[in-house]
Amino acid sequence: MKEVCIKGCSIGTGLPKICVPIVAHTMRELFAQARATNNKTFDIVEWRVDWFEGFDDPEMVRRAARVLRGILDEKPILFTFRSKKEGGEAEVDPAYYVELNRIAAAEGLADMIDVELFSGDAVVRQIVEHAHAAGVPVIVSSHDFEQTPPHDELVARLRRAEQLGGDILKIAVMPRDSRDVLNLLGATEEVSRTSEHPVVSMSMGQLGIISRLSGEIFGSAMTFGTIGYASAPGQIGIEPLRAVLELLHQK
Amino acid sequence: MKEVCIKGCSIGTGLPKICVPIVAHTMRELFAQARATNNKTFDIVEWRVDWFEGFDDPEMVRRAARVLRGILDEKPILFTFRSKKEGGEAEVDPAYYVELNRIAAAEGLADMIDVELFSGDAVVRQIVEHAHAAGVPVIVSSHDFEQTPPHDELVARLRRAEQLGGDILKIAVMPRDSRDVLNLLGATEEVSRTSEHPVVSMSMGQLGIISRLSGEIFGSAMTFGTIGYASAPGQIGIEPLRAVLELLHQK
Repeated sequence: MKEVCIKGCSIGTGLPKICVPIVAHTMRELFAQARATNNKTFDIVEWRVDWFEGFDDPEMVRRAARVLRGILDEKPILFTFRSKKEGGEAEVDPAYYVELNRIAAAEGLADMIDVELFSGDAVVRQIVEHAHAAGVPVIVSSHDFEQTPPHDELVARLRRAEQLGGDILKIAVMPRDSRDVLNLLGATEEVSRTSEHPVVSMSMGQLGIISRLSGEIFGSAMTFGTIGYASAPGQIGIEPLRAVLELLHQK
Repeated sequence: MKEVCIKGCSIGTGLPKICVPIVAHTMRELFAQARATNNKTFDIVEWRVDWFEGFDDPEMVRRAARVLRGILDEKPILFTFRSKKEGGEAEVDPAYYVELNRIAAAEGLADMIDVELFSGDAVVRQIVEHAHAAGVPVIVSSHDFEQTPPHDELVARLRRAEQLGGDILKIAVMPRDSRDVLNLLGATEEVSRTSEHPVVSMSMGQLGIISRLSGEIFGSAMTFGTIGYASAPGQIGIEPLRAVLELLHQK
């Protein structure tokens, strides 16, 4: 069975897992967004650290992470610093990027971390090594907010994410037409069928919403849904998202 | 604009149109199923004449059609005799098939008729001619409940439906795996982008449900939804169907 388990949540089997982004600038917003998830039905929280005003101070990040843990209780937390060039809010130098993720994994601030494929092989390998030493699985991700690369390039990026040690292989791209959406679905189907690791993929924007729903059929193991706050175009609310995932569930 | 309009319902633009099948054996069931559609939100009724016990008596068919008209009021009616070999309930000889459809069109029993591509070219052409003489648009359809033919064959069948005079080109096939579903979506995208006529397509069964939802993106202009009674595997209720169509709507 090809799956990644964190806190009883199996990514790669059954229904695609619903991941809710937390995009808070301040500690106050962090509180509010975390509390808003209470009593909601979803699987994982992604803390988008790049949104947090204290991202460049490890002590602030530790404090915020502890706040999240306290409020989210047993919900698995994905720790993600998304760089500006891949759709995030901030930029840091590679050494700090490595250190921040090392802290997150080594100190148990989160249950899974996200590393950008295009950080460079050495950076990715280092972060993966630190995370695995702490028993923390890693999503190796890549994003293109402008376009959808050709099929072979999509497949190559996912395979590269696997070669660099990713436990989950993620790609998010922007479609310009319906063929781009099919292209993303086809690459997802191919890699999810032939690789050792779960794939997470999405075609962004309104045109790509279908790819956020069809994961169980075409091989995307996780999908991002919102509780008020989106972190990328095309994300929909967790209630309609879950309703469609259940409708499409292969019993 | 590539569209077929019947009674204010435009097939080929905007949201995919929801078509509800009526699969009644008796006049009593016909009443009940027709009445059950009242006050429901959908676009078209497909009367599956092959289910009706009086299918081999034109007078019975006329009477049933008038009952339907009376209850359905202004809702467009699609008249479909589906043969056993394509998933229907009955079989008739080609001459009666032509005659039944001629009556339906010429006497205004329905607003659109369905003709099976594999009835043979001469039969299809005759039915199309009669229907067009009466100003009634024709769906030329083909079905495979066993498998999904390769991409080129799917495209060829839709193109053949167009060559034979179809105003709407329909294909329904059974997937054996996710690739079959992608295959159907890809063929739909290609033909809907390049042909003069709306396409209607579906990948059947649980695995193919996604194809009943994604029509607006990949080019299927109509989708079958149920009010209690399904006519093929994978059809879902009109309420969840409409909710997802609206979620995916390209504003």
